[in-house]
Amino acid sequence: MIATILIHCPDQPGIIHSVTGFIHKRGGNVVYLDQHVEKEDRVFFMRLQADFRQDTWEEPSFREAFGKGPATTYAMEWRLYLEDRSRMALFVSKYNHCLYDLLSRYEAGELNATIPFILSNHPDCEPIARQFDIPYYCVPVTPESREKAEARQLELLREHQVDCIVLARYMQIIGPSLIAAYPNRILNIHHSFLPAFAGAKPYHAAFARGVKIIGATSHYVTEELDEGPIIAQDVTPVSHMHTVSDFIAKGRDLEKIVLARAVQLHLHRKTLVYNNKTVIFA
Amino acid sequence: MIATILIHCPDQPGIIHSVTGFIHKRGGNVVYLDQHVEKEDRVFFMRLQADFRQDTWEEPSFREAFGKGPATTYAMEWRLYLEDRSRMALFVSKYNHCLYDLLSRYEAGELNATIPFILSNHPDCEPIARQFDIPYYCVPVTPESREKAEARQLELLREHQVDCIVLARYMQIIGPSLIAAYPNRILNIHHSFLPAFAGAKPYHAAFARGVKIIGATSHYVTEELDEGPIIAQDVTPVSHMHTVSDFIAKGRDLEKIVLARAVQLHLHRKTLVYNNKTVIFA
Amino acid sequence: MIATILIHCPDQPGIIHSVTGFIHKRGGNVVYLDQHVEKEDRVFFMRLQADFRQDTWEEPSFREAFGKGPATTYAMEWRLYLEDRSRMALFVSKYNHCLYDLLSRYEAGELNATIPFILSNHPDCEPIARQFDIPYYCVPVTPESREKAEARQLELLREHQVDCIVLARYMQIIGPSLIAAYPNRILNIHHSFLPAFAGAKPYHAAFARGVKIIGATSHYVTEELDEGPIIAQDVTPVSHMHTVSDFIAKGRDLEKIVLARAVQLHLHRKTLVYNNKTVIFA
Amino acid sequence: MIATILIHCPDQPGIIHSVTGFIHKRGGNVVYLDQHVEKEDRVFFMRLQADFRQDTWEEPSFREAFGKGPATTYAMEWRLYLEDRSRMALFVSKYNHCLYDLLSRYEAGELNATIPFILSNHPDCEPIARQFDIPYYCVPVTPESREKAEARQLELLREHQVDCIVLARYMQIIGPSLIAAYPNRILNIHHSFLPAFAGAKPYHAAFARGVKIIGATSHYVTEELDEGPIIAQDVTPVSHMHTVSDFIAKGRDLEKIVLARAVQLHLHRKTLVYNNKTVIFA
Repeated sequence: MIATILIHCPDQPGIIHSVTGFIHKRGGNVVYLDQHVEKEDRVFFMRLQADFRQDTWEEPSFREAFGKGPATTYAMEWRLYLEDRSRMALFVSKYNHCLYDLLSRYEAGELNATIPFILSNHPDCEPIARQFDIPYYCVPVTPESREKAEARQLELLREHQVDCIVLARYMQIIGPSLIAAYPNRILNIHHSFLPAFAGAKPYHAAFARGVKIIGATSHYVTEELDEGPIIAQDVTPVSHMHTVSDFIAKGRDLEKIVLARAVQLHLHRKTLVYNNKTVIFA
Repeated sequence: MIATILIHCPDQPGIIHSVTGFIHKRGGNVVYLDQHVEKEDRVFFMRLQADFRQDTWEEPSFREAFGKGPATTYAMEWRLYLEDRSRMALFVSKYNHCLYDLLSRYEAGELNATIPFILSNHPDCEPIARQFDIPYYCVPVTPESREKAEARQLELLREHQVDCIVLARYMQIIGPSLIAAYPNRILNIHHSFLPAFAGAKPYHAAFARGVKIIGATSHYVTEELDEGPIIAQDVTPVSHMHTVSDFIAKGRDLEKIVLARAVQLHLHRKTLVYNNKTVIFA
Repeated sequence: MIATILIHCPDQPGIIHSVTGFIHKRGGNVVYLDQHVEKEDRVFFMRLQADFRQDTWEEPSFREAFGKGPATTYAMEWRLYLEDRSRMALFVSKYNHCLYDLLSRYEAGELNATIPFILSNHPDCEPIARQFDIPYYCVPVTPESREKAEARQLELLREHQVDCIVLARYMQIIGPSLIAAYPNRILNIHHSFLPAFAGAKPYHAAFARGVKIIGATSHYVTEELDEGPIIAQDVTPVSHMHTVSDFIAKGRDLEKIVLARAVQLHLHRKTLVYNNKTVIFA
Repeated sequence: MIATILIHCPDQPGIIHSVTGFIHKRGGNVVYLDQHVEKEDRVFFMRLQADFRQDTWEEPSFREAFGKGPATTYAMEWRLYLEDRSRMALFVSKYNHCLYDLLSRYEAGELNATIPFILSNHPDCEPIARQFDIPYYCVPVTPESREKAEARQLELLREHQVDCIVLARYMQIIGPSLIAAYPNRILNIHHSFLPAFAGAKPYHAAFARGVKIIGATSHYVTEELDEGPIIAQDVTPVSHMHTVSDFIAKGRDLEKIVLARAVQLHLHRKTLVYNNKTVIFA
C-alpha cells in the first residue's frame, strides 16, 4: 500500500526527521521523498511516498495520528492520497486534438484516472465520445444561459463525483462557482507561452509580433483569466515562412503534449500550489 | 567574387526569372537563392548570392544596370553586398558575459566583422577591452548628460565608420538620433522571451509569475522599447527550485548564445526587416 | 492548379533561370521556390510550386515539354505532383499510440492523404480500426510464413493502389520486395536517436548507458535495418530518476510527434532523397 | 557553515530518518535534501546540505562520529564537503572556445574553483592564458614521449594540489595513471551526442549519416574511450543546408554550454557516479 503525502508549512529544523520518524514507527518505508524550501518566504514543501506493508496499517488512524502529531507541531497543510484513481471530467468545445490525445492515452491505460463524462458547449465532439464509449453532455452557453449552464455543470460534476476537470480546449470562461468548488483542480491549456499573448487569438498575436518561438501553457484555472499557477510549458520554433495556420497546426502538437504532461503531474499528485505558483515534484 | 543581393518588392510573376537572367547574362552563377512570399501583403523577399568569376565584372556598372533594370521594373528595395567585413561597435554596461563571448568569437576569427571600439557608460569592462586590445570609450550617461552623451556616441560611430552596433547588455536607452542613423542596424539582447516581460528586471518578473521556461530575445532597436523586429529567440527550462539568481545565471548562457546567433545572421546579411518583423534567410 | 516539382541534377549555372522561364512561358506563377546545392558533390536540388491559372494548362503536355526541355538539358531527375492526395497504408503491431495519433489527425482533416487500410501482424488494434471505420487486415508473420505474408502485403498494397506506407510501430522487418516496390516511400519510426541505439530495445540500451537525453527518428526504410535516410528527429531530456518504463512513456510522445512530422513532410512532397540522406525543403 | 554530504548505500528503511536525526542532534539544519532509490539494484543515493550554526561544530569530530554512526550502520560510501573551492586544472589543445568560455566565467566569479594552471600539448593557447594571467604549461605528446608527458602531467597536478581536471577540447588520450589518480574527477567534452559518433571526427560522421540533430556530451573519463559516465548532454538542430563546417561552428556553442554545465554540477558536488552512470542532484 503506497501512500502519498503532500505537505507545506513554515520552514524550521527537524521536519523531515519528524515525518520520516513518524512513518517509520508505523511500519512504513519511505520510497520517495522530494522536498523544497522557498527561501524568501521560508516555506517548506515535501512530497513523500511510503510503502506500508503491515496488514495493521489503517488509513483513518494514520490520518488522525498524523494530524495530531507532526501536522500540528509544524502547522502543516497536508494531504494524503492512497492509490485511488481520480475522477476526471473533460470539457471541450469544437477542437478535438487534445480530446483525442487524452482519450487515446486513457484507452491505452496511461492515465491514473476514470473519465466519467465529456462536457461541451457544442455537439461537434459527440461522435468522438461515442467512439470511446464515454457519456457526452452538451451544455450550450450563451450570455443569457450562462448561470443556468454553470448550475448544470456543477450538478453533473457532483452527480459523477468528479475530482478534477480538464479543459481540453474549452473556449468558454469557467464560472466562479466551479472555480470555488474545484480550487487548483481545473487544468486549462492556453495556446501561448504565458504571460505572452494571454487572452483570445494568441497565435494571431504571435504572428503579428513576429516571434521566432511559439508556446503552450497548462495552468490551474483561477478567477483571473490566464493568470493561474503554471503547471507546464513548452515551445517550438517558427519562422517568417509560417502563416497563422501553420502556427495553429504546430500549436496543436504543443497543446496536446503540454496538457497531457500537466494532467499526468496532477494525477500523480506531483503538483503543489503556493502563492499562485506551482511546486512540481520530480 | 561573391555578391549578396537582398530584395523586397510587391509580389508578381517573373521576378526570380528576371533577376536570375540578369545575373546570368553578366556572367554570374547563382550559388544561393532563398525567397519568401508574404501572402497577406503580397510582398516578395529574396536573398541571392552569385559568384561572378569574370574579371570584367564591376560593381558600379552592375549596380547601375540592376537599378535601372529589374529593380525599377519590379519596384524593388534592394541592397548589394560584396565580401566586405562590417565595422561593428560594441556597447556594454557592467555585465561582461556577452562581451566576453563576442570578443572570444572575434579573436577566434568567427565573426565577419571588425570591432573598432567598445563603448560603455561605466569603466568596469575596460580591462577586458585591454585584454583583447580594442579601444574602450567610457561615455557616462546621466539624465543631465544624456544629449551630450548621445552626441559623443554619434561622433565616435562616425569617426570609426561604424556599420552596425551591438548592445551586449548595454543598460541605457538608445537615443533617437542613433536609431535614426542606424535603422535596423542596432542589435539588442533582451533577457526575456519577448513580448513576455518587456522592460526592466525580466528575470524577477518571470520568477514572480512562476513560469517554467525563461528566454532571451535579440531584436533590432526601434523607438519603441523592446518592440523592435525580433531576430532570434531561445529558451531554457526552469523550475520552482530555481531562485532569481539561478534564473540570471541560466539567462546569461541564453543571452550570449542568442545574441551571437543574431549577430551572425546580421553580419551574413541574412536578415531583412519588413513590417516590424524579420525575414531570416536560411 | 498548384503543381509541385521536385528536381535534382548536376549543378551548373542557369538552372533556376531556365526552369522559372519555362514555367513563366506556360502561364505559371512561381509561388514557392527552395533550392539547395550540395557543394561537395555539386548536385542541385529544387522544390518549386507554380500556380497555373490558365484553363489551357494541361499536365500531359507540360510533362512532355518539361521532359524534353529543361529536364534533358540539365540531366534532371524530376517529379511533378498535382494536388492529389496520397494513398497511405498504415502498418502496426500492438502499440497503438502512433496509430491513434495518425488516425485522429486523419479524422481532423490534417493529413493530405487517404488511408485505405491498416495492416497488422496482430489482431490487437482492430477495435481502433473499427472506431475510425477503416479496413483492418491481420497478416501474421512467423519465420515460416514470412514469404507468404510478404506476398499478401504486396497484394493488398496493389489492390488498394497504395502510394506510401507508414510503419506506425510495426515490429517486423519489411521484406525486400516491398522495399523494392516502395523506394523512399516507406516511413518508419525508430524509438531512438539514430544512429545511437539502432536495433532492438533502444530504451533499455539508453537506460543502461545512462544518457541524459532520449530521442526518436523517422526514416525511409532501406535494406539496411535502421540505416535509411533520416527524415526527422527529436529528443527529450531524461534523468537518473527515470526508469526504463519512464523512458518508454516519454518516448511514446516523441515517437508520435516525430512520425507525424515526417508523414506531413512526405505528404507535402517536401523530401528528396540523395546519397542515403534527405533534403527537407522548408 | 554549510556542509554537503553525498551518500550511497544499499537501500533499507530508516536511512533518511537516521541521517537527519544525526544532523539535528549536532545542531544542524537541513537546508537541502535530495534522494534517489535505484530500484533495480536497491541502492540509495542522497545529497544533503546542512547549516551548522553552532560555534561548537567541528568537522573532524563530525566526520568521526558520522563514520562510526550512520555510515557504518548502513554501509555507506560517503563524502563530506565544506564550502571550499576546488582546484581545477584545464587541459586544452588548439581549439580555444571552451577555454575562453570557462575563463570568462572564472573571471566573472561564476565558478566555485581556483584554476592553478592550464596545460596543453600545443603552444597555441598560451596568449589566452597570459590574457587571464594563469600559468600555462606546454607538454607536447608524441608516441615516444607519451609516458614522459604523463609523468610530467602528474607532477604538475600534484605540485598544484589539483582536485579535478577539465579537458576543454584536449585532443590527446588521458593516460591510465591520471585516470587512476583522478577517478570521476576528469571531465571531458565529446563533440557528439554519445553513444552516437564516439571516437574521432564525430561531426564528419554525423554529416555523412545525415542526422537532423547534433549534440555534445560531457562525461567523466574512464579507461574506455568515450564510455565514461555521462554528466550532461545537449543538442541543436541541423539540416541538409549545413556543411561540416556549419556543424563544427554550431557544435562549438553546444560544447561550451554543455561543458560549463557539467563543470558547475561537479563543482557544486551534485554528481554521484554509480555503475558507470551519474546521479545528478537537482
